[in-house]
Amino acid sequence: VRERALIDRYFKPVTGSPAARGLADDAAVLMPPAGRELVITKDMIAQNVHFLPDDPPETVAHKLLAVNLSDLAAMGATPLACLLGLGLARDTSERWVAAFATGLGAACNRFTCPLIGGDTIAGLDRPVLSLTAFGHIGPGQALARSGAHPGDDVWVSGTIGEAGLGLALLRQDSAGDPALIARYRTPTPRLALGQALVGLASAAADVSDGLLADVRNIAIASGLQLVVNRDDVPVHSLSAADPSAAMTAGDDYELVFTAPAGFRPRLVTLSQTLGVKLSRIGRCAPGSGVVLVDATGAPQPILRFGFEHESGNGRQESAKAGSEEGG
Amino acid sequence: VRERALIDRYFKPVTGSPAARGLADDAAVLMPPAGRELVITKDMIAQNVHFLPDDPPETVAHKLLAVNLSDLAAMGATPLACLLGLGLARDTSERWVAAFATGLGAACNRFTCPLIGGDTIAGLDRPVLSLTAFGHIGPGQALARSGAHPGDDVWVSGTIGEAGLGLALLRQDSAGDPALIARYRTPTPRLALGQALVGLASAAADVSDGLLADVRNIAIASGLQLVVNRDDVPVHSLSAADPSAAMTAGDDYELVFTAPAGFRPRLVTLSQTLGVKLSRIGRCAPGSGVVLVDATGAPQPILRFGFEHESGNGRQESAKAGSEEGG
Repeated sequence: VRERALIDRYFKPVTGSPAARGLADDAAVLMPPAGRELVITKDMIAQNVHFLPDDPPETVAHKLLAVNLSDLAAMGATPLACLLGLGLARDTSERWVAAFATGLGAACNRFTCPLIGGDTIAGLDRPVLSLTAFGHIGPGQALARSGAHPGDDVWVSGTIGEAGLGLALLRQDSAGDPALIARYRTPTPRLALGQALVGLASAAADVSDGLLADVRNIAIASGLQLVVNRDDVPVHSLSAADPSAAMTAGDDYELVFTAPAGFRPRLVTLSQTLGVKLSRIGRCAPGSGVVLVDATGAPQPILRFGFEHESGNGRQESAKAGSEEGG
Repeated sequence: VRERALIDRYFKPVTGSPAARGLADDAAVLMPPAGRELVITKDMIAQNVHFLPDDPPETVAHKLLAVNLSDLAAMGATPLACLLGLGLARDTSERWVAAFATGLGAACNRFTCPLIGGDTIAGLDRPVLSLTAFGHIGPGQALARSGAHPGDDVWVSGTIGEAGLGLALLRQDSAGDPALIARYRTPTPRLALGQALVGLASAAADVSDGLLADVRNIAIASGLQLVVNRDDVPVHSLSAADPSAAMTAGDDYELVFTAPAGFRPRLVTLSQTLGVKLSRIGRCAPGSGVVLVDATGAPQPILRFGFEHESGNGRQESAKAGSEEGG
C-alpha cells in the first residue's frame, strides 16, 4: 500500500482539527492562542529500543503521544496539537498501521491534542516513530529545570519503578500484573499536575531516564546539590528489596519537582484535589550533584543514575559518566 | 558516546535561539509572532531511502532542513524555528554526528531557522532523521493546493528533473556534473518565491514526489483538470530525450503553482526581481486529473506520475494507482 493511501485511509479520519487542512497541503496551519507562549517537544521511539515488537500497535501509539505530553506536563503546558512522523518497516503490515492509527486517534482525543499533520516513510528495518507536540502556557510561566533554590523540597508524583517492573515482566514472558504492564505500555502524562505546579514548583522535570538521572538534571541546571532520602522514594512493593533499580529504570513519566518548604500545605491539598500521590523525597542544598541518603542520613553509593539506550543495547548509565556531567 | 553527551557536544553549540533554553529543559518555549498563524511541517528522511550512505553528513543535514523548508515555501510562510529528531544507527560514528551537526547549524543559519530542540535516539539499523519546521504567515494567507480555478495558468519554478539526474550520476559512481549532484544533495527551498506568491498564486505545492504527481495533487485538491504542455516543462539538456523521467523523478523542491492569467506580467516581473526562472507550463480546466499534451495539443500517455518509496525499494508509482486517487 502506498504511503499516501495509508495516510488517507487511516490517519485522515483521526485528524481532529481544521489546522490539519484535511492533510491535503504541504503543511498544517495553526493560529496559536493569543498572548500565549508555545511549548514544543519532539521525542522519537523505535521498536526494540523503546517498545517491544509484541506491544499492541494501539499502545505504541499511546506511548508515543504520552512521552511527548509528559515533556509538556513537566513545563506546565496545556496540549494544543501534534504532528506524527511514521517510519514503517519493510514488513510492517497494513493491519499494524490501522491499529496504530486507531490508538493514536484515541490518545489524541483523551488528551485533547489533535493530530494536525506529519509524514509517512516506508522501507525501514523496523518501525521508528517520531512525534512533535505543541502546548501553550502564559508568557514566562513555563517550568524549568534551573529554578531550584537551596532549602527547597524535592517532590515526586506517583510511584517510581513500576514501568520498569512491567518491562521486566514482559521480557520474562510472564503473564504478570496487568497494572504494571500498563505502566510500561500506556503511561499517563501528568498534565493536570504540571499545569497546577505553575507558581508552586521552582523547578520540574519528567521522570523518563530514571529518577536519579532526572533529579541530577535538575541539580545540574540549578547549580545545586539535591539530597534524596532513599526510604522516602515511593516504590512498588516488588521493588522494596531493590529500590535502586526502581530509581534508575526510567519510563515512569511522573513529575519530579522542587518547591519552597512553605508550599507543603498547598501541595498536600493539591495532591488530594487531583487524586495524585505526591511524595516529599528530599531537599536542595548548596553544592552539586545528587546525594542519596538512608533514614539515618548516611550517604549511600549511587552505582548508576538512569537508563540510556546506546549502540543498540540498553545500557545502564554509569555513575562515572554521571560525574563527568557534574553529578 | 551517550546521547546526552552528543547533544551537549555537537548540537548545543548550533542552537541559535533563547527558545532552545540551552537544550536543558524538557521542551522548547517560543513566543509566536503576534497575530501570525503558524505553519508547521514534519518530514522524515532515512538512509538508503532518501539519501545515500556516501552522502556527506553535512549535505544530509542540509537536505533534511531544506525538504521541510520547501513545504513552508509552498505555503508562502517565513521560517521561524526547527526541532531535530536524530535517530542514529548502531554503527554511526561520532565523526558523522559532528559533521551532521555542523551542516545543520550552517543550514539553519543560511535559512534563518534556528534549531530550538529535539531528541536523539541510538541503536537503529541505519540513520533515520526527522525534522519539524515552523514558519509564520498572515492569518488566512497560507497558500493551499485547493485554490485553483478553471482558466488559471500552471507555473513551475526552476528546472525540473535535475535532482533525478544527480541521483542517477551518484548511482553510476560517475564523477558527474557537480551542479546536478548538488541539486540532489543540497536542494534550495524556494522561500522568497513562496512568500512573494501570497496574493498571486491561487494554489501551490512543492515538487517533491515528481512534477506530475504534485500537479495531480493540485488537481485533486482543487477539483479540476490540469493540462500540462510537455514541451513547456523546463528540463535539463540531458533530459531532453526523456522528459517524462524528469517530470516524475521528484526531489526537485521547486514550486508548482496556479495563477490567474491576468497575473502573467506580474509573475514575469517577479521572476526577474528574484532571479528565479518561472515557466508557464499549462492551464486549469473543468474536469479532473492531469492531461499531458504535446505542442499540437495531442494528449500523451502518462505511464507514471511520480516516485514513491515502498517496501524498502524505490518504486515508480503506477498510473493505475494514480487513477485510483482520481488522477
